[in-house]
Order: sequence, then structure tokens, then C-alpha cells
Amino acid sequence: MTDTNCSVGIVAAQDAAFDAPLPLASGAALPGYQLRFETYGELNADKSNAILICHALSGHHHVAGRHHADDKAVGWWDNMIGPGKPIDTRRFFVVGVNNLGGCHGSTGPSSVNPATGQPWGSAFPVVTVPDWVTSQARLADRLGIDRWAAVIGGSLGGMQALHWSIAYPQRVAHALVIASAPKLSAQNIAFNDVARQAILTDPEFHGGDFYQQNAIPRRGLRLARMLGHITYLSDDGMGEKFGRMLRSGEYRFGYDVEFEIESYLRYQGDKFSDYFDANTYLLMTKALDYFDPAKDCNDDLTAALKPAQAQFLVASFTSDWRFSPERSRETVKALIAAGKRVSYAEIESAHGHDAFLMTDQPYVDLMRAYLDRVAKEANA
Amino acid sequence: MTDTNCSVGIVAAQDAAFDAPLPLASGAALPGYQLRFETYGELNADKSNAILICHALSGHHHVAGRHHADDKAVGWWDNMIGPGKPIDTRRFFVVGVNNLGGCHGSTGPSSVNPATGQPWGSAFPVVTVPDWVTSQARLADRLGIDRWAAVIGGSLGGMQALHWSIAYPQRVAHALVIASAPKLSAQNIAFNDVARQAILTDPEFHGGDFYQQNAIPRRGLRLARMLGHITYLSDDGMGEKFGRMLRSGEYRFGYDVEFEIESYLRYQGDKFSDYFDANTYLLMTKALDYFDPAKDCNDDLTAALKPAQAQFLVASFTSDWRFSPERSRETVKALIAAGKRVSYAEIESAHGHDAFLMTDQPYVDLMRAYLDRVAKEANA
Repeated sequence: MTDTNCSVGIVAAQDAAFDAPLPLASGAALPGYQLRFETYGELNADKSNAILICHALSGHHHVAGRHHADDKAVGWWDNMIGPGKPIDTRRFFVVGVNNLGGCHGSTGPSSVNPATGQPWGSAFPVVTVPDWVTSQARLADRLGIDRWAAVIGGSLGGMQALHWSIAYPQRVAHALVIASAPKLSAQNIAFNDVARQAILTDPEFHGGDFYQQNAIPRRGLRLARMLGHITYLSDDGMGEKFGRMLRSGEYRFGYDVEFEIESYLRYQGDKFSDYFDANTYLLMTKALDYFDPAKDCNDDLTAALKPAQAQFLVASFTSDWRFSPERSRETVKALIAAGKRVSYAEIESAHGHDAFLMTDQPYVDLMRAYLDRVAKEANA
Repeated sequence: MTDTNCSVGIVAAQDAAFDAPLPLASGAALPGYQLRFETYGELNADKSNAILICHALSGHHHVAGRHHADDKAVGWWDNMIGPGKPIDTRRFFVVGVNNLGGCHGSTGPSSVNPATGQPWGSAFPVVTVPDWVTSQARLADRLGIDRWAAVIGGSLGGMQALHWSIAYPQRVAHALVIASAPKLSAQNIAFNDVARQAILTDPEFHGGDFYQQNAIPRRGLRLARMLGHITYLSDDGMGEKFGRMLRSGEYRFGYDVEFEIESYLRYQGDKFSDYFDANTYLLMTKALDYFDPAKDCNDDLTAALKPAQAQFLVASFTSDWRFSPERSRETVKALIAAGKRVSYAEIESAHGHDAFLMTDQPYVDLMRAYLDRVAKEANA
């Protein structure tokens, strides 16, 4: 799988079907379901070198490599995963999975509901971070992985890594919680709700059952993505990249694209609305809103983290205002108070929240050093 | 007009009609138009005690007092204006005006276009801060006011105050520029464009000519307001007021209101979409985007401010992230470099951008002290 470009090369997705119903945090249950996943590298003989990558709001199982030789796009974290990269596939067996409720192959709102023969649509149950972790644990069982050398995620993915450490203390050696938060703030929830309202009030949404209407709530999804994108970039980074640059050099006094930043956002929104499922977007934002491991411990995060046995790397980025360094420090303080082993890095970056996906050198160096330690401990 | 409640009491709006066309920055011209305004207090014999209040995005001419005895609402800056208040109507003659393009009585997109006999709608020209200032100067002429003791505004209103000082140096004794910025950042423009796209893509918008269709782009306007509101409040303030408070005490795992912040935002959005005009919203955000006095001076704000003869008070609020203190300091630095007399205050407040409308005591004290000086200089 190694090649001269440090790429995992051509990869193929796999599907795992699960017949046993999955009980959900909401009290509902998901009947038989499917998880789509990819793996890179080889599982070693004592199965100690497996790493789980958890994805964020719009991510999926295709984390590294290409699907075919002419594939223009690589997996969403290809810069971090591959032979010789920080998550080194010569040492690790890496698993990427599309979460339940997703729109990239795992069972989600656009899948057929076996009870009706129609797409799930509005009937698809709300899924939470703990639900995802349960479903991922079943996938680990299927793959024969008792214990992850590391569970790694950024943003919403970091919440999954954190929850893994609480829900399955003996199955996680290291949890890497990057650009994340132990729960959303009121402002975080507010942005999510505006995005949801954009989708829910789009006349093409049809209460979530738009598939049967041959409709797509493209306008709502586009607005949701435009708004999301603002919160992924930093004010300074956006200023440096776009500033007040005009499309035509002069004011044109109309509602067509005037400033380059408008062009960029509208393009991102259009592109996203072409491929992403509106119900999945709603579900992902809900999973973010609901995540709050301290909730069942009288809002005591330290108490919530007590069961964890993992070692932790918590990392944040200076210009991230969606989940600012302050939010990561909340996690770190609680971990320390709970007596856990935790490393914390606050990384200088102008890339805002998106920095967790980027290739800022200090970040790459940090990941490389930390994962070298993970590999050594795992005899990988 | 004074009463025991320190209110200006019952007030009535007036209309001023202007027959001469108004040439606009865009190159278009607005034919005969009307400005709706209110005044409080008495113009003194030498007409030296007049103050102009410039409104922000969703403001209007009704700045203080009530329209009738049972009026539940007071003017939008009633906490600041009245007998004994910082802008003391026993000393000052205060003028509030609804800007062109507005939806509160001045000529705007919902007014009848004399050329067609139909509402202006999409044919209403884009208006800018300089256009507004020109129209306000004509109103000043009409009222016999050669020189304002002060021009005062917050946010978009502050941009008007700043532009007054540049465009009519001899007609402004003091310019009070509060919670404002010398131009929008890329992030500011991005938020505005998401709001505009919400309106422009609402099927009920009908390209701006929804009046004739008996339609209202309520969904778009509601989203625009919800989003705007997030940027008016501070993260901390929102956290203190709403936090993660749940409507029903427990998660309900659905898309109805779950968190109190959702309820608040949706209510604000609903209320706003009941009375505000969608075309006006678009125009106001465009006026914000285009404001950039340095643009015609090779991006040299100091050069742009050279002509000003006013004294300046620039004020910002610590938790304002829409127009952060840093943005006000840009104005202050340029004013100092241009050799102007400027006072600057960075006021501690948890109220975010909205603080300019609130009654934080240090802010009230600052305004009282500064306006006492304005009054003395004006022999008011």
C-alpha cells in the first residue's frame, strides 16, 4: 500500500451489516443497519495497532487515498494519514467509518426503511455521539479489535474520541481530541439552529420526506453551509485571504457577487448542496448540540471523565472561534482534576476551526511525535 | 415636553417632502422623496443646539418617547434621550430620521414609484451612507440647522456620523461614533451575504417585487434576523443568559425548540419578519458593505479623515465581536494621525454589539459627561 507519494494509494470502501437492533439514547432503536468503512495499513498479529478516525459534521469513511486511479479527490485527512505521515500506515491499521445518519453509505435518512420500503426521511431517529460510539464498538468487534491504539477526531470527531474513553475505558489506549469542546455553548447551538431552520423552512424539505417528492432542499442546505463556513474560518484568515477584494474592481451596486468572499461562500454552499443530504445535516448538528458528557453527572465534567483509562492528547488552534482554545482547556482541566494523563497543545494557526484539517507544520509535528509514542506503546 | 418620568412624552412623526432629485453614489438618482423624522426639545435662538441621531440596520426615526398614551413601546434610544438623560432634551433639539430605503415612512422599496404607480420593489436604487448623509443635510437645511452640535450614531449609525464629519466639515461640531468600524471586514460581509441570500432565495421574494404578489419573504427575513441577532450578542452574554438551558428540562430528540436560545432566536426572527421590509433589509446590509471612506484615498483612512473639523468621541464595547474595539481603534488611530481631537472609550460590557443600545452605567456616564461638554460649547 505504500507508494512514493506517501499515499495509501487506491482504496475501497467496505460495508458491515448488523442485524441486532441498536438501542439509541433517545429511547428509540435502529433496526438492522449498515456501516460503511475503509481501512488502511495492516492489522498486526496481536491486533494492537488499530486506530479509529471519527469524522466531523460533513465527513465520512473516506479518510485517505483515492477510490480509483483518476480520482481527483483524496480522502478528507489524506494529509495526515499514509506511509510516512503522522498517522503512519506502515505502523498502524487505520479505520475510517461513516457514522449512522450519514449520507455516504452507512444507514441514514436516505436509506430504505425496511419497515416501509421507502427512504427513512423524517422517520430516521435522532442519533447521538454515544449512539455512534456504540455502533463503532460493534464494528470494532467485527474487525476483531479489542482495544484501539488510538481513537482520533477533530471537532465533532473529538467528541466521539472523548466519549469512547468514557464509555469503553479498556478499549482505548489513547484518545486524541482535537479542536473540540466538552459541550456546545449557547452561541454554538444558536448557529446550528439557524442552519437547521434554513433547511426545515425550505419549501423543498417537505418535512424531511423530500426524497419521494423528487425534491431537494437545496436553498436551505446552501445557506446552512455558507453560515457554517464562516464559523470554520477565522476573522483574520478570511481577512488575509479575501479582505474587501472586489470581483470586478469597482462597486456595482447590486446583489450579484460584489466581494470575493461572497463568491467563495456561495460556491461552497452550491457545491455542498449538490451532494450532501439535508436530513443528515440536521442530525449531525443535533448530535453536536446534545453532546454533554457531564450532563448525567450533575454538570461535573471531572466526574464524567473519571472512568476513562486512556491517555489524552487535547489540541486546539489559536484562531479557532467555533471551539476556541478556552473550550479545550475546559476538557484539559477536567481531565487533570480526574487524575488522567493528558498532553495539551495550543497551536498557533490562522486557519480557524478548519486548522484541524490543514497542514500547519507545528500541528503535523505534534501529531507525528504523539503518534510515534502511541506506536511504540502499541508495539506497532 | 418634560415629565416626571424623564421621558420626552408623546411625540409625533413629521414628513418632509423633497422635490429635487437626489443623485446617488451608484450613479442613479432618486426623484422626489420623503423623509420621516421626529424632533424632541426646542431649537434655540441661534440654532446651535441641534443633535442628529443616525440609526442602524433596523432602526428608524422614532428614537424617543411614545406615539400615544397607550403606546407600550418607546423609541429605540429612549434610555439615552429625554429631559435629564445624557442627550438632554432640556438642552438639545434632537432630530431622528428614517433613512432612505427604510420601511418606516421615508421613501423606500415599499413606497410607490411615481414612474409606475406601483411599489418600487426591485427598482429601488441601492443607497449608501454618503447618500443618506446628503439627504440628511437637505433635511437640516429644511429645519434651518447650519451646524449640528453633534451627529451621533451606533453601528451603521456611527458610519453616518463619521461620514458627516468628512462630507460636511463645517456642519458638525462633534461626531459620536459608537460601536462602529471604518469599513466591514470579510467576515462582516460574509454574515451580511448569508442574510441576503436567505432573503433573495426565498421563493416569496419574487425578485424583490413581492408586494404586487401579496407575498412576504418571511422565511428569509426570519433567518436573516436570527443570524444577525447572534452577532449582536456576545458569546459570554448569551452563555450567561441562556447557556444550555432546556425548554422542557430534558432532551426530547426532535426539531422543536429544545434549548431556550433556540426559542429566543426563533421568536426574534418571527417578530421581525412580521414588520420589517425584506428589500430594506437588503439595502441596509449593502450600505454597510459599501461603507469605506478610505476607498477613494488609496485605502488611507487618515487621508480620508483630513477634511474633518469635528471633535470626535469614539466608543467601543469589550464584548462586541461584530465591531470589536480593535475596529474602533483603527478609526481612532487614523483620526489622531490626521491631527483631529478625539476621545476614545473602550467600555466594559457583556452586552456585545447591542451594548450601544443598552444602559450600562459606565456608558451612560460617558455619554452624559461628553454631551455636557457638547452642550456647553453650543451654549445649550
